[in-house]
Amino acid sequence: MKAFLDDDFLLNGKTAQRLYHEYAAGMPIIDYHCHLPPDEIAADLNFKNLTQAWLYGDHYKWRAMRANGVNEQYVTGNAGDEEKFMKWAETVPYTLRNPLYHWTHLELRRYFGVEDLLSTKTAGMIYDQCSAKLQTKEYSVRNLLAKMKVEVVCTTDDPLDSLEHHQKIKRDSFNIKVLPTFRPDKAMNADEPAALNAYVDKLEDVTGFTIQDIDSYLKALKSRHDYFAANGCKLSDHGLEQLYAADFTQDEIDMIFKKIRHNTTLMPLEILKFKSVMLYNFALWDHEKGWVQQLHIGALRNNNTRALTTLGPDTGWDSIGDFSQARLLSRFLNRLDKENKLAKTIIYNLNPADNEVMAAMTGNFNDGSVAGKIQFGSAWWFLDQKGGMTRQLNALSNMGLLSRMVGMLTDSRSFLSFPRHEYFRRILCNLFGEDIDNGELPIDIEWTGKIIQDICYYNAKNYFDF
Amino acid sequence: MKAFLDDDFLLNGKTAQRLYHEYAAGMPIIDYHCHLPPDEIAADLNFKNLTQAWLYGDHYKWRAMRANGVNEQYVTGNAGDEEKFMKWAETVPYTLRNPLYHWTHLELRRYFGVEDLLSTKTAGMIYDQCSAKLQTKEYSVRNLLAKMKVEVVCTTDDPLDSLEHHQKIKRDSFNIKVLPTFRPDKAMNADEPAALNAYVDKLEDVTGFTIQDIDSYLKALKSRHDYFAANGCKLSDHGLEQLYAADFTQDEIDMIFKKIRHNTTLMPLEILKFKSVMLYNFALWDHEKGWVQQLHIGALRNNNTRALTTLGPDTGWDSIGDFSQARLLSRFLNRLDKENKLAKTIIYNLNPADNEVMAAMTGNFNDGSVAGKIQFGSAWWFLDQKGGMTRQLNALSNMGLLSRMVGMLTDSRSFLSFPRHEYFRRILCNLFGEDIDNGELPIDIEWTGKIIQDICYYNAKNYFDF
Amino acid sequence: MKAFLDDDFLLNGKTAQRLYHEYAAGMPIIDYHCHLPPDEIAADLNFKNLTQAWLYGDHYKWRAMRANGVNEQYVTGNAGDEEKFMKWAETVPYTLRNPLYHWTHLELRRYFGVEDLLSTKTAGMIYDQCSAKLQTKEYSVRNLLAKMKVEVVCTTDDPLDSLEHHQKIKRDSFNIKVLPTFRPDKAMNADEPAALNAYVDKLEDVTGFTIQDIDSYLKALKSRHDYFAANGCKLSDHGLEQLYAADFTQDEIDMIFKKIRHNTTLMPLEILKFKSVMLYNFALWDHEKGWVQQLHIGALRNNNTRALTTLGPDTGWDSIGDFSQARLLSRFLNRLDKENKLAKTIIYNLNPADNEVMAAMTGNFNDGSVAGKIQFGSAWWFLDQKGGMTRQLNALSNMGLLSRMVGMLTDSRSFLSFPRHEYFRRILCNLFGEDIDNGELPIDIEWTGKIIQDICYYNAKNYFDF
Repeated sequence: MKAFLDDDFLLNGKTAQRLYHEYAAGMPIIDYHCHLPPDEIAADLNFKNLTQAWLYGDHYKWRAMRANGVNEQYVTGNAGDEEKFMKWAETVPYTLRNPLYHWTHLELRRYFGVEDLLSTKTAGMIYDQCSAKLQTKEYSVRNLLAKMKVEVVCTTDDPLDSLEHHQKIKRDSFNIKVLPTFRPDKAMNADEPAALNAYVDKLEDVTGFTIQDIDSYLKALKSRHDYFAANGCKLSDHGLEQLYAADFTQDEIDMIFKKIRHNTTLMPLEILKFKSVMLYNFALWDHEKGWVQQLHIGALRNNNTRALTTLGPDTGWDSIGDFSQARLLSRFLNRLDKENKLAKTIIYNLNPADNEVMAAMTGNFNDGSVAGKIQFGSAWWFLDQKGGMTRQLNALSNMGLLSRMVGMLTDSRSFLSFPRHEYFRRILCNLFGEDIDNGELPIDIEWTGKIIQDICYYNAKNYFDF
Repeated sequence: MKAFLDDDFLLNGKTAQRLYHEYAAGMPIIDYHCHLPPDEIAADLNFKNLTQAWLYGDHYKWRAMRANGVNEQYVTGNAGDEEKFMKWAETVPYTLRNPLYHWTHLELRRYFGVEDLLSTKTAGMIYDQCSAKLQTKEYSVRNLLAKMKVEVVCTTDDPLDSLEHHQKIKRDSFNIKVLPTFRPDKAMNADEPAALNAYVDKLEDVTGFTIQDIDSYLKALKSRHDYFAANGCKLSDHGLEQLYAADFTQDEIDMIFKKIRHNTTLMPLEILKFKSVMLYNFALWDHEKGWVQQLHIGALRNNNTRALTTLGPDTGWDSIGDFSQARLLSRFLNRLDKENKLAKTIIYNLNPADNEVMAAMTGNFNDGSVAGKIQFGSAWWFLDQKGGMTRQLNALSNMGLLSRMVGMLTDSRSFLSFPRHEYFRRILCNLFGEDIDNGELPIDIEWTGKIIQDICYYNAKNYFDF
Repeated sequence: MKAFLDDDFLLNGKTAQRLYHEYAAGMPIIDYHCHLPPDEIAADLNFKNLTQAWLYGDHYKWRAMRANGVNEQYVTGNAGDEEKFMKWAETVPYTLRNPLYHWTHLELRRYFGVEDLLSTKTAGMIYDQCSAKLQTKEYSVRNLLAKMKVEVVCTTDDPLDSLEHHQKIKRDSFNIKVLPTFRPDKAMNADEPAALNAYVDKLEDVTGFTIQDIDSYLKALKSRHDYFAANGCKLSDHGLEQLYAADFTQDEIDMIFKKIRHNTTLMPLEILKFKSVMLYNFALWDHEKGWVQQLHIGALRNNNTRALTTLGPDTGWDSIGDFSQARLLSRFLNRLDKENKLAKTIIYNLNPADNEVMAAMTGNFNDGSVAGKIQFGSAWWFLDQKGGMTRQLNALSNMGLLSRMVGMLTDSRSFLSFPRHEYFRRILCNLFGEDIDNGELPIDIEWTGKIIQDICYYNAKNYFDF
């Protein structure tokens, strides 16, 4: 029996252990996709207590608490911070085999040196101890990042964002690059014409453009794309149920845009055509600038109307869809590739049943111009655990080149999530290590170690060119 | 090498063994969903021979025999019971790696103490020995249940059922609770208006209601729901390819019901609307009474017309569908949750590719009112084997709280299927045991043992409130 | 640590090793589905060098090279053979964990006795050494087949093929049977009326029939089916995204066929009806003759228009679709079974998410006439690796009778692919061996060995009746 979460956690066998400790562990972190709030980094915030750092905004924990029968008052409601923490501590022992159990204790150890297991018995002590630390300079958010050897953080930002926080961080000569990512979901959300219309108005304000048609709309948005580039942005990002890849004509799109400007509700096909033209143009700009476009595919959002009404979006009521993906994804990528305008692309897939479809799809658009041009992105959201990562890594191994993968990202809103890179690296090293031990790979530690370092760090460094 | 099916069957390592033997093995059984015939329990039937107890009605075995090239005469045809058994015995050695191989030998051991492997060589002796035992009082169906420490059995019954057998069993003060389950598939089967119409007529007879419109139809059915409740029923059950969750108006439904009463064939959308209104109402009643609603999703039934015509339904010609499930399931549950009228719900999924979709979906409707309110049900039918159970348990672990699962059920028509609870428990203990041995869970046998006992017994006890 | 690719490669434990070495390894090979070019066997070709034997036509390697950033010039372009080989050698070390890494080194060892790992360092020596061997008589394509103990090879052929090469091979009394397979994809390709029309013209030429309507078209094609039978053909094969199983009337089909003859573009439903009638008739003929029909389901082809235009089809731009399969497959098989005209059938599935759907489906049409009548075919194309094979074998084990499986096939265009049978056999033996070691199967090496030999050889021998 191995001790829980020891130095060789997730590393079965000497080879895996050696690969991890000698090659992977020391690599810096490039967190090329996350949802950290740039204002908090700019302000170099200190959290008041562990609840604020850990439970505010963490819908993973919220879902576990609700499943455990905890009343919403203690989840997102108006209970006090310490009360909320106690309810979380009560829930943790019931999360055995859920990734939260690993993350929780990994984070307590790596950030706070707390080796105890969290439960009602230890909750008080842990809360006090960690909260006290969080109030010290050593635990300001910038120092939390530094503690994990983070080199680059890419936040996720709306095109209208002023990027003032990113600029402030840069002016401060903070030695971790904090770069924006262009995420224009709202700019194509034709499902809600009124909201989109208001968005266009704001875009006029921000850019000074007069937007009377689709062309001026695209021009104005492109000026924001340019602005993001000037602020160090190297990636775009899109959250989609399925790819938008409908045919459209200029006339159709002109007409649809007019309808939007008149707050007219659109037909489903019109919405799809509008989104298709927008996504297509974003993709062209990404290609022009040598950016990487990210596609997060397959979430089924806002399932619970009662909660959406009271708590709003992103509060833990999303799940995994079972949409048909292959043909639309193929059509979207092909339309761009046909004109040799397909940017480097990362496809993140939320339904693990589609892993092989996605991994095989990437191979259709590798044109030999860049190693690993089309990436099958790391296991995401609900799949961000040992089983999900293993399946993603195996699908990628079987259908493509794992060696060219750009590796892990946190995709997190929390400053305490960075041990997930460690988690990923351990799983990665274990797969290689077990294969070597089983005679399924050659006993060449040096070459395997090089590949692992590539996946953990160097591939991302080369691919994104920050 | 371990001996086949020994005491530590499926238990790899001391920890798993300890968890199983010290915590799981002794737990009583709550079989909250099965298809045992209540009349046979009421009559406390003795089977005449092993074929009648084991092969009559077991479509799993039938499919294996057909795949092995056995003529239908020996499967469901008019061959003698002993001849049929010989053909089964001939097939068993060809079922290596199929769950039938495990079930067969587990059942021979647990019920009859037969340690020999079944084959043509041993068939005669085993047939004689088991058939003789089956004719003794010790092997009456009630005693077969008692032998397995069963505490509760929930059968599956049509709303029109008189429940006389359940009442007889209760009057006998049989110390195992045998309770009905409300399964109104026929009451919403608008695919066949004539059959549905006849069903409505019978409902009039049984209830004394005059049914001239949808409202009186629902009232009459609800009186049966009440009647079931008065007879100890705590669950409903529905078998569906996909959820019925269409929009409908009162006028539409009135019209559709009139068409049904006139034996008019309905349009597909009308059928769907009718089923949607029915399922919605059943769900409301379940919520009112605090029942648990069960949704068995994704079977593709009656694939073989030739066999359906000659042998009828449920004779082994069903399989796994690949329907789109997420959005409809979300819509069905949300419609109820919106009005805070969503009952406790168990979702059983037949296509393992959808496991993660289902497990994540449950989290969208856990409102904190009950621990484990929305359950991802145990691996079902074709998935009721080591691989299928493991995948279900892992998906649930990764996306939700395994600790709150209400555990295993036989879903069986056979009185000899109860060792499947043992099978499940061994697999469950092995998952926890391996995780502990690998350092992926803390070495806390007591707490883990408590969780295991919860999953094997106490969670069901609390959740269903029999 | 085990040495890479040693004698016990993929065999974990003594039991697996014994099963492989004593039972599986010595079995001859029946390669009942592949894409070897019959003209090269007829000519008993010698390859000029390793690039021509290994890289020409191998889209697996091409995709890996493109993913590794290799320019198309060195993949399918006009670079020299040795240059191309160097680019491949450079790529190989980046294919760790991809099946190509195993296949590459297995093939180097089994055919050429090369134990070195391929990389830029060893590339020159390996290229020279293997190329020299390939020019010797011992390495003619017939001798390459003989070296692997191949007994039967079934090529894949268009109905219009003269089969002259098969006849030549037979006349030569070559002691390996090289038989044609009837693959009429082009005969039903109503997506391209002009091409289909030209095909009908050629069919008139080849058969001497006048084809003025669908009946004469079917008669002419059937004469080719007869001709193939006379040349030893025992299988048909179809590559389909989804099954074609639409309803059709004689009038509709007459009309559609007239449109085709007039080069009129068809409506999607007309195309589907036409394909449905064709596939249905092919199936009837297969049943009449006792052939086996093969269905390769689920590929998404020609995703990359740019590459299709410049390089043509089958150059590595296909991938895995996520089509809905269950209902159509059921309808297709049932239509035939209803009239008791369903031929023996092998279903090959390309999306591993559908494995259980497929494995369960086969059980709906096993009518007891032949053991293993409906086969769930071996893992195919993108799935032809350890993970994919294991999943296919486990799904088949869980839902059907693995013992009745007709085993492995190469499906390859390369004469050097036959070690994939060894690969499959090792994985198969390991599954049985591990189950025995774990106490999940009885310690009965002899019976298990017999089952393994059946799967590797005897089942195919009996099933196909070459």
